[in-house]
Amino acid sequence: MIGASFPHAPSVPLGVGDDAAALLPRAGQYLLATTDSLVEGIHFDLAFFSYSQLGQRAVAVNVSDIAAMGGTPTALLVSLGLTARQGRREIAALYRGMEKEAGQIGQIALVGGNLSSSPTFWLSITLLGEVTPKKVVKRTGARVGDRLYVTGTLGDAAAGLAILKSGRDRDRRYRPLIAQYRTPHARQREGASLAAEGLASAMIDLSDGLSTDAGHLAERSGVGIEIDAAQIPISPALRRYARQTGGDPLGFALNGGDDYELFFAVPPRKEARLLDLIQRGILDATPIGMVTPKSRGPRIRIDGQLRPLVAAGYDHRALPRYY
Amino acid sequence: MIGASFPHAPSVPLGVGDDAAALLPRAGQYLLATTDSLVEGIHFDLAFFSYSQLGQRAVAVNVSDIAAMGGTPTALLVSLGLTARQGRREIAALYRGMEKEAGQIGQIALVGGNLSSSPTFWLSITLLGEVTPKKVVKRTGARVGDRLYVTGTLGDAAAGLAILKSGRDRDRRYRPLIAQYRTPHARQREGASLAAEGLASAMIDLSDGLSTDAGHLAERSGVGIEIDAAQIPISPALRRYARQTGGDPLGFALNGGDDYELFFAVPPRKEARLLDLIQRGILDATPIGMVTPKSRGPRIRIDGQLRPLVAAGYDHRALPRYY
Repeated sequence: MIGASFPHAPSVPLGVGDDAAALLPRAGQYLLATTDSLVEGIHFDLAFFSYSQLGQRAVAVNVSDIAAMGGTPTALLVSLGLTARQGRREIAALYRGMEKEAGQIGQIALVGGNLSSSPTFWLSITLLGEVTPKKVVKRTGARVGDRLYVTGTLGDAAAGLAILKSGRDRDRRYRPLIAQYRTPHARQREGASLAAEGLASAMIDLSDGLSTDAGHLAERSGVGIEIDAAQIPISPALRRYARQTGGDPLGFALNGGDDYELFFAVPPRKEARLLDLIQRGILDATPIGMVTPKSRGPRIRIDGQLRPLVAAGYDHRALPRYY
Repeated sequence: MIGASFPHAPSVPLGVGDDAAALLPRAGQYLLATTDSLVEGIHFDLAFFSYSQLGQRAVAVNVSDIAAMGGTPTALLVSLGLTARQGRREIAALYRGMEKEAGQIGQIALVGGNLSSSPTFWLSITLLGEVTPKKVVKRTGARVGDRLYVTGTLGDAAAGLAILKSGRDRDRRYRPLIAQYRTPHARQREGASLAAEGLASAMIDLSDGLSTDAGHLAERSGVGIEIDAAQIPISPALRRYARQTGGDPLGFALNGGDDYELFFAVPPRKEARLLDLIQRGILDATPIGMVTPKSRGPRIRIDGQLRPLVAAGYDHRALPRYY
C-alpha cells in the first residue's frame, strides 16, 4: 500500500483503511489544522518538477503553516485529482516525495486521503499538528517597538522559477535558487524553537511574498511596520542572477513569493536571547525592521527614503481571500 | 467573511485567519479525520445541482464517513478549485449549502480552507470529528453469526441521478429520489447511537454501492457475508420508477452508489436491543443478511438461489484504491 512506509506515529490508533482515521491527540495540546492545494497550470508546471519534487513541495508548504504557529506536524491527509497522465508510477513517485519531506521533518503519519479522476491534476493536503496552548504563535501579537526578523534569505525561489522559465537552468551556480523553488524546506525546527522559547510575539510564513505577507501580519496585529530594504537577507546566488540579468534582487525578495521562510516579531526584552541563538548558529534569522504605530501603515525604507510598502506579491489570481 | 455564521464551537480557540486553526480536542477522545473530494464532470454535473445543494452534499458525504465510525463531526476544512464560472455569488451559495448541512448535523466549526484558481471546478473537504475510544466502530469487527443491517432504503440516489439524466425530473413523484441524490442526509444520529449503545461490531457507509461496500466490510473483517435480496429495503418511489421504466429496483439498490446509508453488523446478543430501538422508531434499519465464514465469500440470495455478490458499484474509474 502506498504510504505504508510513512512513520506510523504512536498517536495514530487507526490509520488508512477505514471510513476515517483515528488519532489520539495529546491531552492539553492544541490541535493545529491547515490545508493547502497545488493545481497544475496555476501553482506548478510539470515541466519544472518531477513528481517526487512535487510531493516534497506539497508537504513542505503545509508544514510551513504549522511551523508559523510554532507547532509540530503530526498527521497528513492527501487528496489527489488525477488525469490520465498520472499513472501508478507517477502516483508512487508523488508519495515517495511526500514521504521524503515528511521524514525530514519528523514523525508525520499519513492517515488518510482520497484519489479522484479529474480533468485537471491537483493536490490538496491537510496537515494536522500540535502545539502547547501557551506557546502558540499567532499573527495577532505584534506590538509597537517589537523588532521584525526573517529566517533564511528571500527571493531565491522566485528567481529559481524565473530561471526555469528562461531556460537558463543548466548553469550550476543557479542550482540553489532552483532547488529553493522546487523543494523548499519548511522552517519547522525554527518555528518550534521560537515558540518553545517564547521569543516571537507574532509570526507568519512567507508564501505570497514579503510585501504581501508582512502586510497580513501588520493588519492582523493592528500595527504598522517599517522594513529596511538594506537589511533584507539576499543570497549570493540571487545577487549574481540579478547582476547577470539586469534584474533587481530587492524585487524578487519583496514580491517573489514561494519563500516559505518565517517572518516574526520579537519584543525588545526577548531580543538578547534571540541574538544569542543566532550568534551560536542555532537559528538563521536576520532583523529587517520594526513594528510601528498602526497609523503609519506598512512602510519600507529604500536608500534612506521611507515609502509605503505596497502588497505586490502573489494575489491568488484576484480571488477573494477568505483564508 | 464567508463561513462566519458557522457555529463557533467552544473547542476552537483559533479559527480561520491565521496560518493554521487551533482546536482543543477533548481529552481521552479519539480524533477522527476523513477527506473526500467532488470533481466537476466526474462526481457531479452542474446541470443537476445548485451551488447550495453541492455544498450540502460535499459536507454530507464527509459526515457520512465520520458517522460510519460512530463519531461526531467537529470541524471542517474546505479547499476549492475555482474556474472563472465560480464568482462571489456562486462561492457564497456553496458555503450557504455547507452551513445548512453542518447546522442540521450539529456543532461543526469551519476552521480553515483554501481557494485556488483551477481549470476544473473541484471541492476537497476534510472533516474532523471525535469518538470515545471504546465506542469507535471499525470495518474490521464483524464476526460469523452477526446479522447485517442497513439504514434507510437503497438505490434511491442512483435512480434520482438516472431521472435527472433522462429529463423526467418534472414528475413530482420522483422528487424524493432526486432529493436523495442531490442532498443526501448523512446518518450521523444513527451512527452515533449505534456506537454509544455498542450495538455494531463493524460498520461502513454506502458510498460506492452495497455490492462494493459490503465486500469492503467483509474483506476488512476477514469474513464472508450473505445478503438476502428480498430483504433489501426499497422505497415505494424507486419501485414505481423501476416499474414505469422497466428497470430492476434491485440493480439500483445493489450497485447504485451515493446512498450514504450505514451498513453494519450486529452480534446476536445485541439484536434484541437493536430491534427494540427499531420498533420504537428511534432507528430506521432493516436486517438484510448474515455474516458467514470467510471461505464462502460475499454472496447474495436471489429468488432462493445463492450466488456470488459481485462488486459492481462505483469503481472510482478504475483508479488504484488506497483509501
